[in-house]
Amino acid sequence: MNALTKTASSKTQALTLNPDRLLPSDPTQRAIARELYEQVKALPIISPHGHTDPEWFASNAPFSNATELLLTPDHYLFRMLHSQGIDLASLGVRDAQGGGGLDADGSRKAWHILAQNMHLYRGTPSHMWLSHVFGEIMGFEQCLDAHTADFYYDRINDLLATEAYRPRALFERFNIEVIATTEGPTDSLEHHQTIKESGWTGRVITAYRPDGVIDADREDFIDNLKRFSILSGEDVFSYDGYIRGHQNRRAFFKHYGATSSDHGHPTAKTLNLSHAEAKALFDKLLSGKFTTDDSENFRAHMLVQMAKMSLDDGLVMQIHAGVWRNHNAKLFNHFGRDKGADMPTPCEFNGNLKPLLDLYGNEKDLTVILFTLDETTYARELAPLAGHYPILKIGPSWWFHDSPQGMLRFRDQIIETGGFYNTVGFNDDTRAFLSIPSRHDMARRMDARHLAGLVSEHRMSLEDAADTIKDLTYNLPKAAYKL
Amino acid sequence: MNALTKTASSKTQALTLNPDRLLPSDPTQRAIARELYEQVKALPIISPHGHTDPEWFASNAPFSNATELLLTPDHYLFRMLHSQGIDLASLGVRDAQGGGGLDADGSRKAWHILAQNMHLYRGTPSHMWLSHVFGEIMGFEQCLDAHTADFYYDRINDLLATEAYRPRALFERFNIEVIATTEGPTDSLEHHQTIKESGWTGRVITAYRPDGVIDADREDFIDNLKRFSILSGEDVFSYDGYIRGHQNRRAFFKHYGATSSDHGHPTAKTLNLSHAEAKALFDKLLSGKFTTDDSENFRAHMLVQMAKMSLDDGLVMQIHAGVWRNHNAKLFNHFGRDKGADMPTPCEFNGNLKPLLDLYGNEKDLTVILFTLDETTYARELAPLAGHYPILKIGPSWWFHDSPQGMLRFRDQIIETGGFYNTVGFNDDTRAFLSIPSRHDMARRMDARHLAGLVSEHRMSLEDAADTIKDLTYNLPKAAYKL
Amino acid sequence: MNALTKTASSKTQALTLNPDRLLPSDPTQRAIARELYEQVKALPIISPHGHTDPEWFASNAPFSNATELLLTPDHYLFRMLHSQGIDLASLGVRDAQGGGGLDADGSRKAWHILAQNMHLYRGTPSHMWLSHVFGEIMGFEQCLDAHTADFYYDRINDLLATEAYRPRALFERFNIEVIATTEGPTDSLEHHQTIKESGWTGRVITAYRPDGVIDADREDFIDNLKRFSILSGEDVFSYDGYIRGHQNRRAFFKHYGATSSDHGHPTAKTLNLSHAEAKALFDKLLSGKFTTDDSENFRAHMLVQMAKMSLDDGLVMQIHAGVWRNHNAKLFNHFGRDKGADMPTPCEFNGNLKPLLDLYGNEKDLTVILFTLDETTYARELAPLAGHYPILKIGPSWWFHDSPQGMLRFRDQIIETGGFYNTVGFNDDTRAFLSIPSRHDMARRMDARHLAGLVSEHRMSLEDAADTIKDLTYNLPKAAYKL
Repeated sequence: MNALTKTASSKTQALTLNPDRLLPSDPTQRAIARELYEQVKALPIISPHGHTDPEWFASNAPFSNATELLLTPDHYLFRMLHSQGIDLASLGVRDAQGGGGLDADGSRKAWHILAQNMHLYRGTPSHMWLSHVFGEIMGFEQCLDAHTADFYYDRINDLLATEAYRPRALFERFNIEVIATTEGPTDSLEHHQTIKESGWTGRVITAYRPDGVIDADREDFIDNLKRFSILSGEDVFSYDGYIRGHQNRRAFFKHYGATSSDHGHPTAKTLNLSHAEAKALFDKLLSGKFTTDDSENFRAHMLVQMAKMSLDDGLVMQIHAGVWRNHNAKLFNHFGRDKGADMPTPCEFNGNLKPLLDLYGNEKDLTVILFTLDETTYARELAPLAGHYPILKIGPSWWFHDSPQGMLRFRDQIIETGGFYNTVGFNDDTRAFLSIPSRHDMARRMDARHLAGLVSEHRMSLEDAADTIKDLTYNLPKAAYKL
Repeated sequence: MNALTKTASSKTQALTLNPDRLLPSDPTQRAIARELYEQVKALPIISPHGHTDPEWFASNAPFSNATELLLTPDHYLFRMLHSQGIDLASLGVRDAQGGGGLDADGSRKAWHILAQNMHLYRGTPSHMWLSHVFGEIMGFEQCLDAHTADFYYDRINDLLATEAYRPRALFERFNIEVIATTEGPTDSLEHHQTIKESGWTGRVITAYRPDGVIDADREDFIDNLKRFSILSGEDVFSYDGYIRGHQNRRAFFKHYGATSSDHGHPTAKTLNLSHAEAKALFDKLLSGKFTTDDSENFRAHMLVQMAKMSLDDGLVMQIHAGVWRNHNAKLFNHFGRDKGADMPTPCEFNGNLKPLLDLYGNEKDLTVILFTLDETTYARELAPLAGHYPILKIGPSWWFHDSPQGMLRFRDQIIETGGFYNTVGFNDDTRAFLSIPSRHDMARRMDARHLAGLVSEHRMSLEDAADTIKDLTYNLPKAAYKL
Repeated sequence: MNALTKTASSKTQALTLNPDRLLPSDPTQRAIARELYEQVKALPIISPHGHTDPEWFASNAPFSNATELLLTPDHYLFRMLHSQGIDLASLGVRDAQGGGGLDADGSRKAWHILAQNMHLYRGTPSHMWLSHVFGEIMGFEQCLDAHTADFYYDRINDLLATEAYRPRALFERFNIEVIATTEGPTDSLEHHQTIKESGWTGRVITAYRPDGVIDADREDFIDNLKRFSILSGEDVFSYDGYIRGHQNRRAFFKHYGATSSDHGHPTAKTLNLSHAEAKALFDKLLSGKFTTDDSENFRAHMLVQMAKMSLDDGLVMQIHAGVWRNHNAKLFNHFGRDKGADMPTPCEFNGNLKPLLDLYGNEKDLTVILFTLDETTYARELAPLAGHYPILKIGPSWWFHDSPQGMLRFRDQIIETGGFYNTVGFNDDTRAFLSIPSRHDMARRMDARHLAGLVSEHRMSLEDAADTIKDLTYNLPKAAYKL
């Protein structure tokens, strides 16, 4: 491992959020970028895809403490600390059985670990997101380091105890017009029900993510089906009942605002099985005796079925393909899923999507939004596909690439073939609620920057750029996600 | 689909072609780029590979109207409109049987569709190419939009009826020193004959593209062979006659100026079959009972045979590999080939070219120019290969990547390993005749820009940069293509 | 081939090494970059991986002449000349049997070939490295071209005959704190022994590169094992003795300063075979009757074994994966290995490294440094892997990508996910001794440039940037390689 041992510098740095941050340093470009950014910086946040917890807005209970709010749930932060040999347990990450967790002392110690290792985040988006949270939302004027760790910890905890830092107050302060959470068919949507009945006007909607009942490779597949059966009121252990179960739950999700479904598959494979083939395959999966090809084929088949249902009920499809989940075997065994050990994989779309495209590619009432972690597909597959097929749109740069340079590569490689109007604006895609304003602000600044480059080089008029950035920020996500 | 509905802005924008367009905004770099661009902007156009129609120059008949000249044949334009749910038929695209097409009213309506959707092309090279055609060649001073659509349509049609806008007059106005069209062995080259005999001094040459008689996967393969037999005077249904047929037609094409052959294969695979193996494989293809491996192997074998013939007759080989043609099944069934539904594929060269390179890689009298739509091969395969093998050169950024950012990625990823002198300058590769000056101008500006970056950062002397840009614009394509 | 024939320009250009070379032209960024560069430009050189010849420092004999020192051994230079049809023999490259080589006249002629073809290197790092050697180390004030070729040749030879240009004097002038060479287990390390016993204080250490006795596909595998047996004193033709032989030689290499091993495999595949499986596979390889899968599996198994040994003896592992060696068959048959015909291949890490990571991925006392020639893996695999696994670090941009733009792509695609502190600073990785200062200087300038971009856009504080560049230059390589 050989991590470099760093000693804290003697003097804490001032925390400044320069108003021109992320804009180009060239004065010509900066002036244009500023002008463009000014036009969108105060627009409401449209958040059509993410992972915030609806319970926050249902209960409106105060957040607990700095570590539990900002460090323990943020896989960007703890994966980097893990890479330098720091144990996840010391950061409050619970084991797969829910054991572990930190007491007050442990929680403060974890915060110190973060403070002492802030240099690890230099040049990463996490550094900028945290700085925004600390400076803009919390009002700190000095950086987090070993000297200021306690001051930060205490003050954040004090703030979180106030009314102004409760979830709904922050939602309103953040100027969120609409936010989508992500739930599975096995979720009762009780928190969404509570929100709906509460009279609070914040618009929090759900999205239908059925991976847990589609992916037979999951260890909890059969358990999920049992719950799916109960909630849908259908016998989902028969293929026809299973399909009706989805239709049923999709309708229920629509009742709680859902305008989209979301599909996180290992690949983008689609398959158009006959009813008899699908039924036989489904029965095989239920028997527990199946190959990885079988489970892959069923996922592929279900993408086509979901597209078919979307033609009926109007939900927009999102496909987030190409992740090797839980790559670290020992970590998975001890801590369970989603612990910062997911890895991107090469991804293929032209062949994988063809069965779906052959059926529905030219439909005018269907939208399929594609996301990738394999940036080689931006110019080679996604832009040519979305620049041709009416149903296809390209989702924003995702996950590891949801960063300043990641956004520039996205724009660089996609726009010339796909155009701006086959993209859908920004997703924050986060469970880190406090980082949402920072993430949207970053996206707006990067769009301003990209467009300023085009304007300064006389590749686009200033009028067109001003119109485009408003579309990217507000109109495109609303139109694409039917919000 | 959910296309964003845009209303026209109240005011039409002025159409300006800034003299510094595409040059960097940094003043140091811009001044150098300007100086470099000045040295090449008026050089004659060398167009060694493209798809203009020789009939234009043979007949010198006036072009018909704005829609038929600028929209209907331009797959960059109509694929983008299709991606937003606009039917190809409404744009004048004829079906596979030649049906459809537009009357005067439909043609004007199609032009309005383009005008109302110009925002889709923001940030794409089509926007810049069109602006150049409208501003520089047609003299418009306002942008095309819903308000100006009729004015544009009428005025373009008026211009096209004048002598100055006939094909030969434009050819001369564009300062084209030489242009190559692309024909198959089944083409009689009658138009080239007409041009040659006409006394007109414009240099229009052909290039030998034998895909239609090499690719047994094509639905018209046998029909093509029949015509190939008639035109070559050889029995091309025997393997030896087939080979002689190619030799015969290559000689005929050379008579009409051809200096190159061109090969558009799904992959870059090459194969060195024995005469007996080749004969057996060819007979199998003729029988109609063959696998996709068989047809792939025959294409691979024929690349080696074409290289062998090039050693005899001196034609330069071009390989345009890695396209999934006609990806949209329904569109292909209705409209036929080449309707904007071709998709790039991952492409491999090191292994695929090895049989050819093992035979001829170190020859001094053979040139093979490689093109790719898979940009991951720029730095990983093409630059190392061309930076080593004497026969290999790298063709310019192709098709979807023939754009400002595409050209920058090409330069960024190729030059440091391959050097400028293993590249061959620019190809316009277009059937959009009026866009040719714009495309060459774009390439010259992007080269000026790239070199200005190197000069401003003291990575290259200004003298070397000035010498290099002249080579890229004029000397390299002439040398590489033996023009 | 059709190389462009260039005539020498009438006037030789002045050779100037601008103090701001490689820094951005934007004045804001340049000022910051200068300030950052100033802080590291004089730091000692840490060279933890390279291919200099220890005999130079053992014998301290003068280098022979310009051609033999600068041209004949530099595959960057001669591969480019070869790509333009110049025979390697004319450049002094000896054939596989050691035949060929140049007399005094031939050596001077070879130098003239280089001088006349300097335009081929425009825009390549070789041009900048040579300029640094000529200007900074040799004191030339005019560029090398056809006019100055003789003057250069004679003057370089004169300089090389002086004390100041002997290997040890240059080592000290270059301010090298430590340099690692690379030797195999079949090397006696006699030169390292000579250096150690000489009393000279220059720190020249070895590194353990066992490919020659691990890769059964090599034509010299059995011969290498014989010598391995003699030097290790173990019966390496039995699997257990073979493993002991490695342990034995690693200890011997550590005695001569080694802190690392290095593994140049065609892929990054790892495999955890049982003792019985490994023994059986090894015996199969020795029998000579084996498949390419067998040899691949043995290499994969040995990577895991090497990791296991590293846990015992502390050597840092380097994996340089993904090269198709000796791609040019005719060249290999005539001239042998390492003649500029190696090609990068697509490389996969997530799956290939999993067996090793499942065993040792979370260890705190193991470091594995990964290198790639497939830049698509930077953001998709290497940064996510190294940003999670404690044992993994990312080596600097390698070989073809060890260039200004290559370094920018590395930083662009790795830092946002992997962070600076999962990288290990710079490797020069060269046998071109005189280019070492230039290569390190280039890396420092590019780091200054990259960081200046972040600072000028308010994405990082100047204090953090100054601290980071010192770590990248000096502290990170020392820590990562335990120097």
